[in-house]
Amino acid sequence: MHYFTSDYTTGCTPEILEALSATNLEETPGYGEDVYCEAAKALIQKECARPDADVYFLMAGTQTNLTIIAAALRPFHGVYGTVRSHINTHEAGAIERGGHKVIALPDVDGKLTAAQIAAEQEKYLHDPSREHIVMPKMVYISQPTEIGTLYSKQELEDLYAVCKQYGLYLYIDGARLGYGLTSPACDFTMADLANLCDVFYIGGTKCGLLFGEAAVILNPAVKEDFIPLAKQCGSILAKGRLLGIQFEAMFTNGLYYKVCRQGIDTAMQIKAALQQKGFEFLVDSPTNQQFVIVPREVYEEICKHFTVALWENLPDNKVAVRICTSWSTSQDAVDKFCKFIKEM
Amino acid sequence: MHYFTSDYTTGCTPEILEALSATNLEETPGYGEDVYCEAAKALIQKECARPDADVYFLMAGTQTNLTIIAAALRPFHGVYGTVRSHINTHEAGAIERGGHKVIALPDVDGKLTAAQIAAEQEKYLHDPSREHIVMPKMVYISQPTEIGTLYSKQELEDLYAVCKQYGLYLYIDGARLGYGLTSPACDFTMADLANLCDVFYIGGTKCGLLFGEAAVILNPAVKEDFIPLAKQCGSILAKGRLLGIQFEAMFTNGLYYKVCRQGIDTAMQIKAALQQKGFEFLVDSPTNQQFVIVPREVYEEICKHFTVALWENLPDNKVAVRICTSWSTSQDAVDKFCKFIKEM
Amino acid sequence: MHYFTSDYTTGCTPEILEALSATNLEETPGYGEDVYCEAAKALIQKECARPDADVYFLMAGTQTNLTIIAAALRPFHGVYGTVRSHINTHEAGAIERGGHKVIALPDVDGKLTAAQIAAEQEKYLHDPSREHIVMPKMVYISQPTEIGTLYSKQELEDLYAVCKQYGLYLYIDGARLGYGLTSPACDFTMADLANLCDVFYIGGTKCGLLFGEAAVILNPAVKEDFIPLAKQCGSILAKGRLLGIQFEAMFTNGLYYKVCRQGIDTAMQIKAALQQKGFEFLVDSPTNQQFVIVPREVYEEICKHFTVALWENLPDNKVAVRICTSWSTSQDAVDKFCKFIKEM
Amino acid sequence: MHYFTSDYTTGCTPEILEALSATNLEETPGYGEDVYCEAAKALIQKECARPDADVYFLMAGTQTNLTIIAAALRPFHGVYGTVRSHINTHEAGAIERGGHKVIALPDVDGKLTAAQIAAEQEKYLHDPSREHIVMPKMVYISQPTEIGTLYSKQELEDLYAVCKQYGLYLYIDGARLGYGLTSPACDFTMADLANLCDVFYIGGTKCGLLFGEAAVILNPAVKEDFIPLAKQCGSILAKGRLLGIQFEAMFTNGLYYKVCRQGIDTAMQIKAALQQKGFEFLVDSPTNQQFVIVPREVYEEICKHFTVALWENLPDNKVAVRICTSWSTSQDAVDKFCKFIKEM
Repeated sequence: MHYFTSDYTTGCTPEILEALSATNLEETPGYGEDVYCEAAKALIQKECARPDADVYFLMAGTQTNLTIIAAALRPFHGVYGTVRSHINTHEAGAIERGGHKVIALPDVDGKLTAAQIAAEQEKYLHDPSREHIVMPKMVYISQPTEIGTLYSKQELEDLYAVCKQYGLYLYIDGARLGYGLTSPACDFTMADLANLCDVFYIGGTKCGLLFGEAAVILNPAVKEDFIPLAKQCGSILAKGRLLGIQFEAMFTNGLYYKVCRQGIDTAMQIKAALQQKGFEFLVDSPTNQQFVIVPREVYEEICKHFTVALWENLPDNKVAVRICTSWSTSQDAVDKFCKFIKEM
Repeated sequence: MHYFTSDYTTGCTPEILEALSATNLEETPGYGEDVYCEAAKALIQKECARPDADVYFLMAGTQTNLTIIAAALRPFHGVYGTVRSHINTHEAGAIERGGHKVIALPDVDGKLTAAQIAAEQEKYLHDPSREHIVMPKMVYISQPTEIGTLYSKQELEDLYAVCKQYGLYLYIDGARLGYGLTSPACDFTMADLANLCDVFYIGGTKCGLLFGEAAVILNPAVKEDFIPLAKQCGSILAKGRLLGIQFEAMFTNGLYYKVCRQGIDTAMQIKAALQQKGFEFLVDSPTNQQFVIVPREVYEEICKHFTVALWENLPDNKVAVRICTSWSTSQDAVDKFCKFIKEM
Repeated sequence: MHYFTSDYTTGCTPEILEALSATNLEETPGYGEDVYCEAAKALIQKECARPDADVYFLMAGTQTNLTIIAAALRPFHGVYGTVRSHINTHEAGAIERGGHKVIALPDVDGKLTAAQIAAEQEKYLHDPSREHIVMPKMVYISQPTEIGTLYSKQELEDLYAVCKQYGLYLYIDGARLGYGLTSPACDFTMADLANLCDVFYIGGTKCGLLFGEAAVILNPAVKEDFIPLAKQCGSILAKGRLLGIQFEAMFTNGLYYKVCRQGIDTAMQIKAALQQKGFEFLVDSPTNQQFVIVPREVYEEICKHFTVALWENLPDNKVAVRICTSWSTSQDAVDKFCKFIKEM
Repeated sequence: MHYFTSDYTTGCTPEILEALSATNLEETPGYGEDVYCEAAKALIQKECARPDADVYFLMAGTQTNLTIIAAALRPFHGVYGTVRSHINTHEAGAIERGGHKVIALPDVDGKLTAAQIAAEQEKYLHDPSREHIVMPKMVYISQPTEIGTLYSKQELEDLYAVCKQYGLYLYIDGARLGYGLTSPACDFTMADLANLCDVFYIGGTKCGLLFGEAAVILNPAVKEDFIPLAKQCGSILAKGRLLGIQFEAMFTNGLYYKVCRQGIDTAMQIKAALQQKGFEFLVDSPTNQQFVIVPREVYEEICKHFTVALWENLPDNKVAVRICTSWSTSQDAVDKFCKFIKEM
């Protein structure tokens, strides 16, 4: 039964398995001080057109979030995120373990706006009890968002301008960045992104690697002592090269984009099939996650043939279902799904 | 130039690469809820003769230590370890980040003794300022120790009896457990070990896996809510199956022991060559780490041909050098090293 | 100019100054192991009709909250509170510093309901991503609430029943407990309260003491190792007797209630004067905090003669103003304020 | 029975009780924003000849240590202290709760030396595993030390020079500072001290106040955001004025020194009596703590008449006894003690 539950249901692109095999018995130093990490770092700096960027390879998404936030903030600093941001909902308190309050704000289509942050900061700065309130110091967003939507370049520019105005760091969680940058709806590149935030990470786990994420630190204030800090967080891999080898493969000849485009292509076919059948969506997502609204019995029927994720119970016996594709979603699986929907 | 600096200089055993390739495009649930993790867990339970053991797969050693200690202790609890224990020296404060003081004790040959723990506890319990002192609640040891020595079965039995007497957990860091259990000097099995502590971990990263460690929890008091706790620590891998696949391969047909034995065999040849040349050792290690004492110029000469680790500067212009073999150390590399030593 | 900004604008009741003077040069052991702490503890146990209660004296409100929550929870546990609960708004992340997420819920008149907690727990327990969500383990409420309202006995009974059903601790922040128990609107006693929660604290700082709060722990699961835990939190006063002396004075001959009644009496006079003038209130508060809605120019006029706190900007150029009385609010001050309002 | 167990066995100097009484019903803002805190701050700045110093009033010693260390360091930073430093022995892990490792070093007469810190830093900086080791960032010392000894001005100058050379903060715990500055053996003033460290605190609790400590921050790098940080630590007193009133009284007309001198005078009489009787001391202490070595039966005999503290069991059935005087030790008590010793 085909899985459309998430984008981490399979292993990795064949190129990565090949690279791991080819280098398997080479002897290198540990902890990321090897030639593969160096090469991957250089490729990412180039991709970002930011030779000054610090690049570190971490193992997993929540780990990357907690480590980067610990690097940028002191424990009494808070971080703005949407109520449904990953750090607010699905990290089991990993950010709080570092002392930080996640200041949860309502979102529009999964996004925070520049005006919203400005308003929150004005409220904070003018609160007579300000010194007893958590001090906001970072804005956390995801691109694509947790519900598949995208920030436009203009939205990011506005948000980053407000962040700079108020002395806040802008951190972009790119767990699914590949599916954002390869969406036809995206109007900027990774190099643009690298100039529109203080730190971000390039998701690997969900974008074709076995595992691994690349933290890209632009703001010098966040760079200091990253390694000992990350070590204290338990975030340093002994065989760091495993991450370097994978990211080097991914940023050679545009492989990262190539594989992610498959996630977009398949998602768009599924979206079209569902639309043609007249179903509505929670939100108009141009990326690899689609949140379709169907009667509960339709959901149950789908479940007999495909593995999908129940996202939310809705009124009138309807449900929202998350259908997630990835770099590894086959055309065959999509054909079967679309045929099933059409004939339903 | 051959590396003898550590046991994480290469990738993994071919069987693991094969298993990862063979399963690469299979679709499974995430977060360790897949058939491979289930199979690996069952194999480890069997190896431990403890079907009641909880088994969790984590990514890296420091991460495993901080997660297990957070699972067993509350933040105000302290943990006894030797002054040179890994948690006291090389984890950058990862244990302290959880609030725990590492109560560093002197060691004999890298080991803590039952009598020593009993004496410390008596001192603590009779201290008039006891309520202002960190409350000890765990004994942390490594098997093999950080300097390659081994606890005997009797030593572990004595230590565990004292722990139980004083209400302390005994936790065994098995980062190099494979090299302990396959040493001719070891007088017990993994099943014995599983009855001589509250929790331990089976090292993968240094013992033939690409990466990964298996936490084995015996004491029900440490089992509660492990998953949300580990998630808060950032220790849960989305594609948990990668760890299950590897450990399943390792505990099928005794592969774990087979590959580790290679580390022991090669270390013993190197040890013999160095002994024959008349060199002394910091300690008599029966495992894959050898700490040989040589004049500085000998060390410098070795460095021209092999990569080894300077361990400690000693008086009289001597140095202690760590020579570390592993599952991937080739007979060819050892032959070259021994020949070099002999002809030196 | 008279202060109506808070209930901690002055020192303490004369009886406390006398008790501190009378005992000033007596020599006692430190850290709460003195006869005054023992006596105060016994009086509080009697007041609660719970001779089994553990009673500890702490220095300040936020400190008491963070210490009790650390005593009851493990770092990965979350605590439910209203969006405007003190721990969510005015403790600068003190709870998060212990690792805990404050799970902020909407309130009705400052209160959480049993049905609301049951619904949240059902949602949590049935969430397919439950293991990635912060595990709720405590309900935090304030009596009186942060906006001066009161839980009825029935509401507390219902809430506590739901807490027990779902394995949650119920913790009641009694920073202003004296003003709750002496309000005519309150339908229960401290002894009732002590049977309707797992732990609560009796506010001293705002209720006539110089400083200090009394934690009352009913549930044995929260009692364990409180002293070393509190010591780690920095919450143990060397001259613990200062707290014992104060609480002993307060719970001798009902002084605690007597002084708090003054806060209620004066608040009710002020409330009546404002009502007679036709002003509305944010909420109908039967305790010492009144939140009146007035045109901004009225607020500014008041500020020329009295010190009050701007609580919230409202539409139509109106503001909500907090007027807070206390045990030390004089009849003279109230007369002046009421006269001012009447003649305005 | 007279207490010589500690310097926190009584209340406060009469002047403080008077000041608290005189101001008791005055109405002021909370949280240290009152005129008394302002006045006390100004007096301390003057005493330190450092108008640029930030001064904050905290409640207790361990709280002050954990707050100042959190203000100066990030969680992955470690702090050097002696093995018997207060933060290493008697704070129940309060420093570790902030993430910091206390790097315990051997002491000579309770003190760290400049050479020792330089040697430790050289070892750290040249360790090939440096990035896995806790990063030292602060030197913590106590003046007087935990065993009553004093740093000389030269020793402090040397230590501070080394700290600056290696980028370490020097923090001086002055829990008993009054007994240091008024000892005839002390060769510097508070103003000297304020130029020989980055931050220190002036102990109140043990030096004549009811409770309270004054943090004096000299280095701008430690000043930033102290209030929200301290609030997160639970270290801000609502009625902050209580601390301001006390410190204002103490630094008016040299009261702080006057009362502490009483502790020194009485200690010196006791020391002389014990010396005349031929007893030896653990260390030659010129301050209010004396550690005398006596046969166990002598200790037991003393205990029948006075309350003293057993410090350490020694060989040959001897014990070290701590005899601690304070601002409140009466001449009568000392006379009785000296007479008892003489006639023993």
